[in-house]
Amino acid sequence: MDRIDLLPELWGAPEFTLDREHARHLVKSLRARPGDRFLATDGAGREATLEVISIDARDARVRVVEERRVPPGAGASVTLAVAPPKGDRMDVAIEKACEIGVGRIVPVTAARSVVRTAPDSARLERWRRIARSAMVQSAQSYAARIEEPASFDAFLTEVRAPAGDAPPRLLLAHPAPDALSVGAALAGRPASSPIALLIGPEGGFTDDEVDRARLAGAALVSLGSTRLRTETAAVVAAALALEALRRAAS
Amino acid sequence: MDRIDLLPELWGAPEFTLDREHARHLVKSLRARPGDRFLATDGAGREATLEVISIDARDARVRVVEERRVPPGAGASVTLAVAPPKGDRMDVAIEKACEIGVGRIVPVTAARSVVRTAPDSARLERWRRIARSAMVQSAQSYAARIEEPASFDAFLTEVRAPAGDAPPRLLLAHPAPDALSVGAALAGRPASSPIALLIGPEGGFTDDEVDRARLAGAALVSLGSTRLRTETAAVVAAALALEALRRAAS
Repeated sequence: MDRIDLLPELWGAPEFTLDREHARHLVKSLRARPGDRFLATDGAGREATLEVISIDARDARVRVVEERRVPPGAGASVTLAVAPPKGDRMDVAIEKACEIGVGRIVPVTAARSVVRTAPDSARLERWRRIARSAMVQSAQSYAARIEEPASFDAFLTEVRAPAGDAPPRLLLAHPAPDALSVGAALAGRPASSPIALLIGPEGGFTDDEVDRARLAGAALVSLGSTRLRTETAAVVAAALALEALRRAAS
Repeated sequence: MDRIDLLPELWGAPEFTLDREHARHLVKSLRARPGDRFLATDGAGREATLEVISIDARDARVRVVEERRVPPGAGASVTLAVAPPKGDRMDVAIEKACEIGVGRIVPVTAARSVVRTAPDSARLERWRRIARSAMVQSAQSYAARIEEPASFDAFLTEVRAPAGDAPPRLLLAHPAPDALSVGAALAGRPASSPIALLIGPEGGFTDDEVDRARLAGAALVSLGSTRLRTETAAVVAAALALEALRRAAS
């Protein structure tokens, strides 16, 4: 069944009318006709089978056939903080990390950041659209939260004093002699315990940043023996962390 | 020290003249001047420190300061076979898998391939350029080999009767109930033993292909609980396989 992304404010029950954008998507991309069913999610765990009652290029009226709550996936407790690389390379990091299933992405500004200015609201908006589209693409019911940009130190502070009860295990991707593998750094952690992965800019973290991260309780992790671009490092770190969580859960 | 990619046929010793393309790269991108040194690799494990003797926009004369052989990395024994996705998404798979360090990439045509025609020579040439550029970018001395396209069955046959002595461990990315994690499928393997990862098209492998792969000795592996795009699956599989090999080596 085809999936669609339906923002929370667009839901109604037992019957409701979709906005023009969704109607167009249903007609043009999914070639939907009355009687067709599809799966809608609000990006926060709500999922419903909807059936098309009537549809034209501007309006689509649907009814809720069945609705359910989907439990969060293994990656819901994973925060990925990344110093955004140039151009559209951050788009790749966000799309892939969201497909893999991380729960939260934080754009971080580090000392060697190539992009010196924090992303503006248009860029954040774009990343949020990518996150929601990756959710649909990868058949998930939760969209990763794309947070407001933070400085390196603000992120460390947030990680040390989280809103929840347990501070996450903070992993800093940095090729130090004592760096652990992601699997080793997460060994023995319960599957749902929070994790934060911090990925630096192209030039890496400064010694000073590494020291501050260590003081904040970070473990240094290696993502392999090759030098990875920032967006590649983000995707690799997400994949390895999720694999470690799955191992912990099994 | 900046790195450059120097195809085997361009090498000379103890002094030689670079072709126009490299001279331009040195002048424009690296702003090289006489006396500057950089690291050159031929993509097959040969690495040298070169010093610029003279340079202008058209010619660069260099001398070999020191030359060495670099041993192959952990990923040299990893073959990644991928059913190419549409548009430039295969470029992403190749760039990222090469950064991570796989040794060989084979474009494979499967029953549900979205791209029905095998990639033409221009596309292969483009992928080979991406592989060499990713090698330089990721500070490696070996470029992944981008092989000629193969059908699904031809690839299975090649894997069963390899040119070397030991057939590789074949992992088919497929969400079957008995699918293993990549780590579990590779547990206990020696670090340098060959591995082949087979990643299907967007619609997945057919039951028939899965059966044929099983007969060829493939283990089915899961890359997580989310549905990954082909290029994301390729990158995730490469990252998990390399991590498993590093674990075996340590």
